[in-house]
Amino acid sequence: MQYPASSSTPAPPLSLSSKARRTKEQPISFLINAAMANPSLVNLAAGLVDPLTLPVEETRKITETILSDTVRGRAAMQYDTTLGLAELRKHALKHLESLEGQPANAMGLTPADIVITTGSQQALYLVGETLVDPGDIVIAANPSYFVFTGTLSSFGAQVMTVPMDEHGMDVDAVERLLTRLDAEGKLPKVRVIYCTSYYQNPTGLTLALDRRPKLLELAKRFSRTHRILILEDAAYRELRYDGPALPSIKSFDSDNKYTVLASTFSKPFAPGIKTGYTAMPPDLMHEVLQQKGNHDFGSAALSQHVALEAMRSGAYAAQVERLRDSYRKKRDILLAALEKYMPKRDDVTWTHPDGGFYFWITLPEHVNTSRGAMFDKAVEHGVLYVPGEYCFQPDESGFIPTNHIRLSFGQVAPDQIERGIERLAAVVSGQLGRGTGEAPARKAQHGRVARATS
Amino acid sequence: MQYPASSSTPAPPLSLSSKARRTKEQPISFLINAAMANPSLVNLAAGLVDPLTLPVEETRKITETILSDTVRGRAAMQYDTTLGLAELRKHALKHLESLEGQPANAMGLTPADIVITTGSQQALYLVGETLVDPGDIVIAANPSYFVFTGTLSSFGAQVMTVPMDEHGMDVDAVERLLTRLDAEGKLPKVRVIYCTSYYQNPTGLTLALDRRPKLLELAKRFSRTHRILILEDAAYRELRYDGPALPSIKSFDSDNKYTVLASTFSKPFAPGIKTGYTAMPPDLMHEVLQQKGNHDFGSAALSQHVALEAMRSGAYAAQVERLRDSYRKKRDILLAALEKYMPKRDDVTWTHPDGGFYFWITLPEHVNTSRGAMFDKAVEHGVLYVPGEYCFQPDESGFIPTNHIRLSFGQVAPDQIERGIERLAAVVSGQLGRGTGEAPARKAQHGRVARATS
Repeated sequence: MQYPASSSTPAPPLSLSSKARRTKEQPISFLINAAMANPSLVNLAAGLVDPLTLPVEETRKITETILSDTVRGRAAMQYDTTLGLAELRKHALKHLESLEGQPANAMGLTPADIVITTGSQQALYLVGETLVDPGDIVIAANPSYFVFTGTLSSFGAQVMTVPMDEHGMDVDAVERLLTRLDAEGKLPKVRVIYCTSYYQNPTGLTLALDRRPKLLELAKRFSRTHRILILEDAAYRELRYDGPALPSIKSFDSDNKYTVLASTFSKPFAPGIKTGYTAMPPDLMHEVLQQKGNHDFGSAALSQHVALEAMRSGAYAAQVERLRDSYRKKRDILLAALEKYMPKRDDVTWTHPDGGFYFWITLPEHVNTSRGAMFDKAVEHGVLYVPGEYCFQPDESGFIPTNHIRLSFGQVAPDQIERGIERLAAVVSGQLGRGTGEAPARKAQHGRVARATS
Repeated sequence: MQYPASSSTPAPPLSLSSKARRTKEQPISFLINAAMANPSLVNLAAGLVDPLTLPVEETRKITETILSDTVRGRAAMQYDTTLGLAELRKHALKHLESLEGQPANAMGLTPADIVITTGSQQALYLVGETLVDPGDIVIAANPSYFVFTGTLSSFGAQVMTVPMDEHGMDVDAVERLLTRLDAEGKLPKVRVIYCTSYYQNPTGLTLALDRRPKLLELAKRFSRTHRILILEDAAYRELRYDGPALPSIKSFDSDNKYTVLASTFSKPFAPGIKTGYTAMPPDLMHEVLQQKGNHDFGSAALSQHVALEAMRSGAYAAQVERLRDSYRKKRDILLAALEKYMPKRDDVTWTHPDGGFYFWITLPEHVNTSRGAMFDKAVEHGVLYVPGEYCFQPDESGFIPTNHIRLSFGQVAPDQIERGIERLAAVVSGQLGRGTGEAPARKAQHGRVARATS
């Protein structure tokens, strides 16, 4: 069955678009490969959700309800519109009202301002595609969600960053950056401020309440000849384990003019339906829909009907409660394990996430968590994490910190967490040189002084 | 609940990306509005599928099977990979082998060469995005599927066209065009030849068997410094009512180097799962996956599991047979109605599609089927069609023919078809000036002499 002669014909190379040439391989590929090569690894890297809490039986009932009804079943099997199923958009907006604790019209929103997408990732993509040209500036926290900063780079964006602290993105630093860009005449290039406002991937940090209206005020104040939009990524919002239910940045934007709020049913219900909902200003919506029309003229109707019936029947609300209980326990196990096993030193710290999936560990600067260094040791010891470097944009001297770790407790089973952290702690201890005394020497040796001078 | 003060604050305009500025509104919006404004219209415009033949009960059984099984259910509710569900890719390739009548390795294909997308539309988008920069040339038939030519324009492509005849895209004209572009030094700009090879939207025409290897040979011959790829759109392939089951252009590409074959489960099974599968060369796949990773890191798993179970259980094959029988009848009713009601004149002709959803009617050049002209009369008479002009690229003098009609029998009920054609025929007769005698005068009056001089 082989046709050997034909394979001897060489073909000239592809000629790729400039966008394709700007698009880098997602760094997570090697993590997936490592996990698949060794299933006994405790996988604290994957951003997947917990398989044990997926709403399988609930979705069986939901599809039974939809598909036993000829009218609804036909609608679920047919095309819907690019904007998305009208009833789902209404329910999504009602749901948003209850999350925000204010009526839709106080936020300038109607169901026509909600688009249903193939996960909130698609919404982020579409907004970037609609607004960003090569050389345009997007402001983001450092670190940020690496899939989207990679996407922004593929659009040719210059991603300029501000640091984070325990209260999330440093909004004063955003003001300083905008002021500096204004002074440099670069304000016309600023398109978007990207902010994951709840339990950020990768740090687990949440934007403090008082920073929310302040960020909006900055977007308004620096919008002169054109609008600077805030792209608020709320993917983990409903997975809240502690702390107050904060209103979104969007909720302060009473005219629906300056913010895009990207939300999803994937994380709080099930990724398998890959259905997100995003609220945005009407003039942006008009443009985003032209793009989405060309992408797919609307996401899968079946998934949208499942999301709608989940909301209508109460299965969605019940699932969110179940996930919060389940993930809260795993968060607590992970936190206790860190406290139990990790070296007790001032220069080994971690975040305390109130929700979402992620812990962010900061090690002394001389410790290199990357591949070819500590990451490989961790794999040898049977534990997988995401090296923090992938979550950073380089600073102006090109420096990227390599002393961080992202841990995810989304997918891992509760009884695996303690074992995983025990292994990780052993690897970290080994890297610390069995004591603080060696740290300065290693620091110089690893060249991490770059940061101190930058 | 109104906050009147805030709405008085004007916001500066959005600054759109160059891509957004190149993206035009899809012309079908007004058709959807017209159909919604008057549900009594016979809608021969919509490209939807027949609601009565959707596999609602079959899909109920399929979801029951998947979601009653905890392991499969969890997989269907979780993330899958960007490439798509491995078992579905295997089944899609097996299915392709049976459609082509040859083994996968004779086409240089493995399951890793198949990507699952959110409908085949997304595959077309991704391939365009990966290959086309502003100013690049894409060769297409005139007329072509307008959603994709619009997409290509949004990438900044220069869509250069060749005519069609009863055997589909004029491949000799492709050769002449490539030869001319070569002489003009423009060959390095040619990226893609786009061809809907089965029952084309909008004409219903199929690329003749002998033209298939010939088109491939042209792509190879004119690929000098870079590869010119054939993007073969086979969305309607399985909806075959008459005529032979032709092998794809792809099937002649034994090395899997020059062709992309975009296929879908939407048309032959159900649009509601919005699941397509596309075979492409490995080096292109690598690049397309980087883009898709940024779009959505994989289409909805639930839909993919439904498609897989439909193939495994035989429900897919049974549904294709049912659709072929059902649509064949509607095609025959439409054809008989055209023969019965339409004016019998040499200058009023229509295609005889062997599959798919579309008839293409050609009227005398003086008849203008556009909005503001015959289209409005048709709406008054209670029938909706797509004015042919939207399916054309302008020729080098900027001329676009306005004397064509696209009819779709996808969605319309069988008993509506005859009524719709009777109404349409009455409108056409009115436009013909109640006799051939008036035609020349009207021709000049309508300014359609533009074509004769171009």
